[in-house]
Amino acid sequence: MTGVSTQTGGRVRRPSHGPGSLLEVAVREFLTRGYDATSMEDLSRAAGITKSSFYHHFSGKEALLRAALERALDGLFAVLEEEGSRSGTPLQRLQHIVRGQVAVLVAELPYVTVLLRVRGNTESERWALERRREFDARVAAIVQEAVDAGELRNEVEPAVAARLLSGLVNSVVEWVRPDRGPDHLPELVARAAFEGILPAAHDR
Amino acid sequence: MTGVSTQTGGRVRRPSHGPGSLLEVAVREFLTRGYDATSMEDLSRAAGITKSSFYHHFSGKEALLRAALERALDGLFAVLEEEGSRSGTPLQRLQHIVRGQVAVLVAELPYVTVLLRVRGNTESERWALERRREFDARVAAIVQEAVDAGELRNEVEPAVAARLLSGLVNSVVEWVRPDRGPDHLPELVARAAFEGILPAAHDR
Repeated sequence: MTGVSTQTGGRVRRPSHGPGSLLEVAVREFLTRGYDATSMEDLSRAAGITKSSFYHHFSGKEALLRAALERALDGLFAVLEEEGSRSGTPLQRLQHIVRGQVAVLVAELPYVTVLLRVRGNTESERWALERRREFDARVAAIVQEAVDAGELRNEVEPAVAARLLSGLVNSVVEWVRPDRGPDHLPELVARAAFEGILPAAHDR
Repeated sequence: MTGVSTQTGGRVRRPSHGPGSLLEVAVREFLTRGYDATSMEDLSRAAGITKSSFYHHFSGKEALLRAALERALDGLFAVLEEEGSRSGTPLQRLQHIVRGQVAVLVAELPYVTVLLRVRGNTESERWALERRREFDARVAAIVQEAVDAGELRNEVEPAVAARLLSGLVNSVVEWVRPDRGPDHLPELVARAAFEGILPAAHDR
């Protein structure tokens, strides 16, 4: 545990030290230790490089957090720009968005997990919370459209439904494994959202 | 901000310093600062008492965490012992449990929130995670019974459904306000779980 090359403890698979792999290492440390408890010292050690090399790529811990949050949010907002989220009936668009959200969540699991643990203690965290609210508001607006169009039962309260939907979708990060392909999961979560997690047999 | 009585910054409503109100203060600090970042110093200051008075009631920070986790878990496990969770068809029992879980979550909001933020960094946290898994396993077993009894559509995968259900129910802590009565919410979450968060109008 004395040389730089052995200090990584097997956590860095590729010996590349570009900004991408440093971000990957940093996110892993944030998730293990908690963001507040992680120092640049910890991050350099985990990456197997000197602190000054680390600072060459990122100005500090918050810049890494910001990059991680941007990656998660860019993925989620990209779903809203997809053709399937912009055309079709409101219900079809919602179905597309839920599937897309789950797919991003699986593909960008550590980044989305960092995003969902954010509590607003730093400027980047408050920015991310604001962006999350914006995402949820856009979904809530489409839920409202679907209710107005008569596609959803009219006892659905759009603001509450959007929150429950976001809660259902985001809870997947708590148990999904990174190696589980997204093939089955987006459909499964979408069915849970639109037909119930525990749909009674007599509904059929 | 020099005397003990003004150091509380208005956060302690009642001047009682029994173990119950100290726990309340501690949980509020844990939620604001994060458990790891909270010191006994912070807690004594927030409670407006000396550290030694605090130690008179609790042996330390982890004892407070443990008490908070026990309070949340006792509430949740008590739901499983209620008559409605033990008699009736599996589907009826599940409906009772979901409503009861949401009611506990609202009634014990700060304690359940602490429970749900636990990541397993201390012995008490690992114990709480184990208890949560036990709770979820008991729910999953009833979901399996409901599938076997033909009450739920047979494409429901009990283990996944139990996780999604737990995710849906627990996500409520992220947005529910402590002053919002539990009258409406348990029923609303139960409907979301059994009929869909966004049920299509033509199902009716």
